[in-house]
Amino acid sequence: MIEAGIVGGSGYSGGELLRILLQHPSVRVRWVTSRGGKRLEHIHRNFYGMGLEFISLEEADGGDIVFLCTPSRESMLHAQRFLRGGARVIDLGSDFRLKNREIFEAVYKTTHTCWELVSEAPYGLTELRRGEIRQARLVANPGCFATAAILGLAPLIKEKLIEFDRIVVDGISGTSGAGAQPETPSQHAEIGNSIFAYNVTDHRHTYEMAQELSVLAGEKIDIHFTPFYAPFSRGILVACHGFLTDPLDRGQVLDLFKDFYQGEYFIQILDIEKDAKVSWQYLPYPSVSTLAGSNFCQIGIDVDNKRGRVIVFAALDNLVKGAAGAAVQNMNVMCGLPEETGLTMLGMHP
Amino acid sequence: MIEAGIVGGSGYSGGELLRILLQHPSVRVRWVTSRGGKRLEHIHRNFYGMGLEFISLEEADGGDIVFLCTPSRESMLHAQRFLRGGARVIDLGSDFRLKNREIFEAVYKTTHTCWELVSEAPYGLTELRRGEIRQARLVANPGCFATAAILGLAPLIKEKLIEFDRIVVDGISGTSGAGAQPETPSQHAEIGNSIFAYNVTDHRHTYEMAQELSVLAGEKIDIHFTPFYAPFSRGILVACHGFLTDPLDRGQVLDLFKDFYQGEYFIQILDIEKDAKVSWQYLPYPSVSTLAGSNFCQIGIDVDNKRGRVIVFAALDNLVKGAAGAAVQNMNVMCGLPEETGLTMLGMHP
Amino acid sequence: MIEAGIVGGSGYSGGELLRILLQHPSVRVRWVTSRGGKRLEHIHRNFYGMGLEFISLEEADGGDIVFLCTPSRESMLHAQRFLRGGARVIDLGSDFRLKNREIFEAVYKTTHTCWELVSEAPYGLTELRRGEIRQARLVANPGCFATAAILGLAPLIKEKLIEFDRIVVDGISGTSGAGAQPETPSQHAEIGNSIFAYNVTDHRHTYEMAQELSVLAGEKIDIHFTPFYAPFSRGILVACHGFLTDPLDRGQVLDLFKDFYQGEYFIQILDIEKDAKVSWQYLPYPSVSTLAGSNFCQIGIDVDNKRGRVIVFAALDNLVKGAAGAAVQNMNVMCGLPEETGLTMLGMHP
Amino acid sequence: MIEAGIVGGSGYSGGELLRILLQHPSVRVRWVTSRGGKRLEHIHRNFYGMGLEFISLEEADGGDIVFLCTPSRESMLHAQRFLRGGARVIDLGSDFRLKNREIFEAVYKTTHTCWELVSEAPYGLTELRRGEIRQARLVANPGCFATAAILGLAPLIKEKLIEFDRIVVDGISGTSGAGAQPETPSQHAEIGNSIFAYNVTDHRHTYEMAQELSVLAGEKIDIHFTPFYAPFSRGILVACHGFLTDPLDRGQVLDLFKDFYQGEYFIQILDIEKDAKVSWQYLPYPSVSTLAGSNFCQIGIDVDNKRGRVIVFAALDNLVKGAAGAAVQNMNVMCGLPEETGLTMLGMHP
Repeated sequence: MIEAGIVGGSGYSGGELLRILLQHPSVRVRWVTSRGGKRLEHIHRNFYGMGLEFISLEEADGGDIVFLCTPSRESMLHAQRFLRGGARVIDLGSDFRLKNREIFEAVYKTTHTCWELVSEAPYGLTELRRGEIRQARLVANPGCFATAAILGLAPLIKEKLIEFDRIVVDGISGTSGAGAQPETPSQHAEIGNSIFAYNVTDHRHTYEMAQELSVLAGEKIDIHFTPFYAPFSRGILVACHGFLTDPLDRGQVLDLFKDFYQGEYFIQILDIEKDAKVSWQYLPYPSVSTLAGSNFCQIGIDVDNKRGRVIVFAALDNLVKGAAGAAVQNMNVMCGLPEETGLTMLGMHP
Repeated sequence: MIEAGIVGGSGYSGGELLRILLQHPSVRVRWVTSRGGKRLEHIHRNFYGMGLEFISLEEADGGDIVFLCTPSRESMLHAQRFLRGGARVIDLGSDFRLKNREIFEAVYKTTHTCWELVSEAPYGLTELRRGEIRQARLVANPGCFATAAILGLAPLIKEKLIEFDRIVVDGISGTSGAGAQPETPSQHAEIGNSIFAYNVTDHRHTYEMAQELSVLAGEKIDIHFTPFYAPFSRGILVACHGFLTDPLDRGQVLDLFKDFYQGEYFIQILDIEKDAKVSWQYLPYPSVSTLAGSNFCQIGIDVDNKRGRVIVFAALDNLVKGAAGAAVQNMNVMCGLPEETGLTMLGMHP
Repeated sequence: MIEAGIVGGSGYSGGELLRILLQHPSVRVRWVTSRGGKRLEHIHRNFYGMGLEFISLEEADGGDIVFLCTPSRESMLHAQRFLRGGARVIDLGSDFRLKNREIFEAVYKTTHTCWELVSEAPYGLTELRRGEIRQARLVANPGCFATAAILGLAPLIKEKLIEFDRIVVDGISGTSGAGAQPETPSQHAEIGNSIFAYNVTDHRHTYEMAQELSVLAGEKIDIHFTPFYAPFSRGILVACHGFLTDPLDRGQVLDLFKDFYQGEYFIQILDIEKDAKVSWQYLPYPSVSTLAGSNFCQIGIDVDNKRGRVIVFAALDNLVKGAAGAAVQNMNVMCGLPEETGLTMLGMHP
Repeated sequence: MIEAGIVGGSGYSGGELLRILLQHPSVRVRWVTSRGGKRLEHIHRNFYGMGLEFISLEEADGGDIVFLCTPSRESMLHAQRFLRGGARVIDLGSDFRLKNREIFEAVYKTTHTCWELVSEAPYGLTELRRGEIRQARLVANPGCFATAAILGLAPLIKEKLIEFDRIVVDGISGTSGAGAQPETPSQHAEIGNSIFAYNVTDHRHTYEMAQELSVLAGEKIDIHFTPFYAPFSRGILVACHGFLTDPLDRGQVLDLFKDFYQGEYFIQILDIEKDAKVSWQYLPYPSVSTLAGSNFCQIGIDVDNKRGRVIVFAALDNLVKGAAGAAVQNMNVMCGLPEETGLTMLGMHP
């Protein structure tokens, strides 16, 4: 059994991670920390009656794998301690994702206190960096929007099928993405009938997308990314718009994606024909609700032949494939388990 | 392996049953029928890419357990056929629940075509009729509202602690309870910001509650039940109001419930103190969202000592503990498996 | 023109009051106070670009009518000041509603600092106390749940048609009822797919209902009231359950209500036949969404003849008929205007 | 008084139009038609008790202004009849919007039966074609998405500040945009926790955007438009992405928009500073909920100086400024009334 510890269990990612690990056949959750003083089963009512309790960070000791579910600028304070204790560490925060120190410090407005760890920590998008993750002591789990956008764009970028300087990504997140801390704009009365954009021009995940896609492209790429919150609790849908450098039809792009993600358990390419008799054409594109609770990412594709645009939609559960599920997927890789171990749960309909 | 068949797989209960059975360690889903002509993975997108297809009812053949997810008045047309084929049958519909023929035919406005089967089919609320279910060839899985109300009232009725003629139950269901067939009042634009009552005076589940609770009481009981739809997709919350025949305090009622449901895996009694310093007292009472996808029923209790009322809230997922999960729980009992096999999945937060 | 001032304009009631007053043909809003430091048009984006600004409470001076949109225990600190300044005052808070000092101080856990004002302040449910309101210097605007429950029960109580000790009221509120202050349980991610009860046994509005209905009954009445929050932003639906002392049919109760509320502009009795051919019977009962933004209260009625129960549903917008609209209705009465002046706006569908 | 008739009053646009006209000081609604056979106050519960009834289309006679709230391909069957009867006609459908017959017939897959009327019907986006509308007998009210996108892009296009061949518009609509006809994907259980794109490559409104923006540009423009449905009932938010041909900062673009829409009553440019201390930057961008029920369009702007993109968000109520309110605005212009007559209602918060 893998002995696992969770730092920061009172938030939404930490709670989701706990849910997945409690049902994982090869893991024993050894401890979960929280600072808030509230009881675990009062915060996460889905664990009521299971006898789970938070401990303080000070009491946390070892384990084989430690998951850091801590906010930006905090993971870097804890990673070293657990690594020295012999654990391997998966950081669900953002402190080890960006590999350019100047960019990191500008984006996160802070000085990095253990930059030497950054270079050894692979950017943990398993589908793209499986080999490095397998060997790593420390993995930087990707951001939720970044996961969706990179998965949606990777095949197009890799094959250089779209203009690299005009890629527009609109990403719509459910409200769990805003975190468990109560805030005015995420109150039900405010967002329950609404939708709005935020951090429009320079969202932090933009830099993750640019970094990873530039590697794939072999040249510097900028992503024009805009995030939104909409009134569902879980899920992210990104719409990635690219301008084709050469004409391609929808079938060709679908084939490209099916090839690129061949054998990937968690990536589902929606290969659904457009039915000319139907006036509402929605079936070929993913929606978020049926992915809630699962680690799958569904990808839908279309090509506007008249105007030369390809559109890739990638949908996933921001707390699972966008956070806790991806972390467990990385843990499985790191520990030599089949990658889907403990992650085969299906989404629900409705 | 138990070979299972599902009649009526395109609706919400059928889809949920399929989800549970696909993840059940001792079941192989042999076939799923549907009449609609649509593809399984287009209706239930959570199963995309798994290669599942509907067959017609005519093609359905045998199996060890057949689940009927058919509307009222239709299960009775199919049950006999599968029983004769040697399968044991669990009906998620309502054709075998009511044991008084006159009442059945008045409530469902139909003539029963195989009444002889009714008496051998236990009312399948596992917690109350486990012994009969174990032996049964045919089980009548309970209605969703009835499950919640009976579980919430059983201990009080059994112990005769409340007035039997003044029991008021308000039950609020998510919109999946209205079924997958599109209708005006369950359109998002209509119900998304609303709540309304329906079938206010004589809802069909009223008769199930009265039947089962009368057995427990040893005398005839009427339940004053009113159902509502509210804008969440999954879940039922019932508020059961009883007038205490003798004074009891909250702790005593909590103890009664904990005793009554001692050892029941799926029943969780929220034993949470009311904190006098808090002005919003919501923690001791269940809410539906963290139960979605799970087979648990959470029960919260309060007593108004000043006015002599006890209030029991029972919350569950209408499609799981209120339908498909309960059916699998019954299957486990019928097949001699541990009752929670394949049903240990936890709800999500948020 | 009536010169109006609003104390506490940053909350939801204050904002709604401002919306109504800005569109009222006989009112000029002279000032709106707020403590928060945020700009009015940033909090209430529906007033963007209108040049409105908050002032501090200290700067507030006079006017003909002052509306107090202040929390419990705070209105009593301000009322006297504005009365002395010659204004008439309408308190949307709860400091002047309860007429029994002992009860008030127990319920609100405070000492009342100007109890002498309480007796002169009519309980401002216009339909029931129009005469007193007309003359009043100070009006105690009713609580939102209390408004709905009292309007739903008044005719039955007045005519003594139901048992007075077994009245059960379940009241479901939209999340705006929880106020503008961000809290965990009213976050979208928490309540967006859920419903839960709170303050189950002794909600403050219970005492308003008991007080006012006892006056109508001519004897002491207790109401067994339970409040819930559900995931819509505006609206309250109360279900009032009574046990008939003598048999009555639905038509008779409808007639009673139509008589009782004859001529009341804002009370709409849904006189819609139950259609035996329809299996979903929802049309005869009110829902909240089409009342949002309006000052109407819709009442639907049913009688369970088999079991002797009458059910009255009353639906309204908690911020309008349940707060700001009711306050303006009172202002109109106090100022000799037609009662519906500035309050004729219709709800929306959808 | 203007005598108004409404063809097609049972849908959402027709109902909203009725709501606005009933509160318009210079209009008398003479008749409303519907085919469905249901009663008006049963469909639109916000009009309960007002004594309104539908008539059949055959019974409809004249009036000064006739509004056609009919589906595509149907308005063209009725327009001539009412014009001949001497009425002026405003079509909320799509039959007279596109001025290129070939495009119209390809997009709507039909033969136009009165093409001669198309050229005399101005595209009724009041802010851009006020002069033509004033004189018109027949006005083609714009599509909801088209209204938002054109208003959001017009100043940039007019001034040629962005690349004309790389304009990406993602438009997110509330579920009322899908119409009142019940359909599976707009059922609450399906969309209530979800978001999805539809008609991704060639939505009909794309052609309206291209047509009108090409006129402004003086050259042919294509818009890369993708529509989505999200779980709110009213509202549209469009995100318009353009690549700046020359560097401009946010303040310059705000000034351009303020100038362009100088004096426009219904267009509100959100001129709100980005506060560097705030980590959630949402205040400068519009959200849809506070516009519900109002005829305002709020526009928010940002510029990504690092990457050369301008983003314009335009938000409005799809049924008001996107349909019925815009139609009444046109009616006011046609009848010589102040443009905002009967349209000054404010949105609500929350």
